[in-house]
Amino acid sequence: MTTQQLIEQIKKKQSFLCVGLDVDLNKIPAHFLELEDPIFEFNKAIIDATHDLAVAYKPNTAFFEAYGIKGWISLQKTINYINDNHPEIFTIADAKRGDIGNTSSMYAKAFFEDLSFDSVTVAPYMGKDSVEPFLAFEGKHTIMLALTSNEGAFDFQTLNVDGEELYKRVLETSKSWKNSQNLMYVVGATKAEYFTEIRKIVPNSFLLVPGVGAQGGSLSEVCKYGMNENVGLLINSSRGIIYASKEADFAEKARAEALKMQQEMAAILQS
Amino acid sequence: MTTQQLIEQIKKKQSFLCVGLDVDLNKIPAHFLELEDPIFEFNKAIIDATHDLAVAYKPNTAFFEAYGIKGWISLQKTINYINDNHPEIFTIADAKRGDIGNTSSMYAKAFFEDLSFDSVTVAPYMGKDSVEPFLAFEGKHTIMLALTSNEGAFDFQTLNVDGEELYKRVLETSKSWKNSQNLMYVVGATKAEYFTEIRKIVPNSFLLVPGVGAQGGSLSEVCKYGMNENVGLLINSSRGIIYASKEADFAEKARAEALKMQQEMAAILQS
Repeated sequence: MTTQQLIEQIKKKQSFLCVGLDVDLNKIPAHFLELEDPIFEFNKAIIDATHDLAVAYKPNTAFFEAYGIKGWISLQKTINYINDNHPEIFTIADAKRGDIGNTSSMYAKAFFEDLSFDSVTVAPYMGKDSVEPFLAFEGKHTIMLALTSNEGAFDFQTLNVDGEELYKRVLETSKSWKNSQNLMYVVGATKAEYFTEIRKIVPNSFLLVPGVGAQGGSLSEVCKYGMNENVGLLINSSRGIIYASKEADFAEKARAEALKMQQEMAAILQS
Repeated sequence: MTTQQLIEQIKKKQSFLCVGLDVDLNKIPAHFLELEDPIFEFNKAIIDATHDLAVAYKPNTAFFEAYGIKGWISLQKTINYINDNHPEIFTIADAKRGDIGNTSSMYAKAFFEDLSFDSVTVAPYMGKDSVEPFLAFEGKHTIMLALTSNEGAFDFQTLNVDGEELYKRVLETSKSWKNSQNLMYVVGATKAEYFTEIRKIVPNSFLLVPGVGAQGGSLSEVCKYGMNENVGLLINSSRGIIYASKEADFAEKARAEALKMQQEMAAILQS
């Protein structure tokens, strides 16, 4: 999917909502556990209930891998279900991968070719040759960690490197990499004041923003400082939507939460 | 497996060799491609040919994931084969994972519980709460990236952070984390002179060392600066051993390469 197609979808749906699919079998309605593939069936129900309100889905690979081969089958079925039924949706493999060049090429093959995701999240620690193999795929997007929403973000990401914070250096350096136009960045919503600084470095890039809702970030604050003329934001919500209820009404409640976010987004887009 | 058991195995085998299982279907003897599970069958042949010379095997998850569900099945069969037949061997899931707390817990579950690896490699960028969930598993080891062997290592890992290099800060900070006694570190062999500095920070930790052989690092140099009184090193070789030949003699040639390394190691241990 091209960036332009993503922007068009945002304008059409009046939404820049990404729904995170982090399925923990302990947190879904009990009746799913009797089905052959509870993870896929739960994801399918969430997708059916929210696909007109969201522009992106983000399966979190850890929550599939934890269930071994069965989990990987659920991941395959989930991405296929989205691609087959809602090809306009932008798909994100939240995998946080990154390794030396020939290994990163294999990860890129796994997520872009074998599973047909539009994008994958990667970690920056190993530098240029660990990320460029992902960037080489045309029509695919690589979403690199910049400033995350967890407490540990302050351990290394905000360290002072020659007068600026490490995450800023990561953003700046990545702009010089080959095919850097295929980069997006993860920026946590819990630190809305940082968006002004980040937009000085990457004014045009899309930012994937976790941390709104469950983790306490404010949608309006993030938009105020982080939005650009092409919107440039994908706001992720996982637990706030998919675990809105553990009862039979879970899908309705998930839709209600997604609708609330979409309506806030529409109001921001129209203001 | 406890660290003590690993040390005993090293002394008994007179080896601190780790064999990396990075199986690319384009690089293995053609007759494997006719089998139902070429990746597992190739790994099995390599393990059969080298298990008395190596103390650890390191399947690289990317090379399994690239083949989707079939690849994950090969990974499961490979780790089961090692655990069932050579329980003394230390197993490393080279996965470079790391994410917010509840996600890292799921990755830990995937590799430590579902697949029964002894250890997993992780990336440090997201800090303390992205690594501690791995450290919470008793008898399991978490091998964190410190200074890698690729060119991109110099993009961020060696940046100056308040007068010292970032990778040193990563090493120091990690020592304060809960259950940090379960940490080992990845340190590339291509920079042997760095080992002196690293040993000042983590004198007792095991270091997993890629980059000897194919990537140009010297075994004797690494041992000179990096070895401690419990050896404290696992030297990885992947391509140099598993792709020693693409012909019918691939297993013999792999054994010959492993034997060469084991003999060098025995000489160093006895000197």
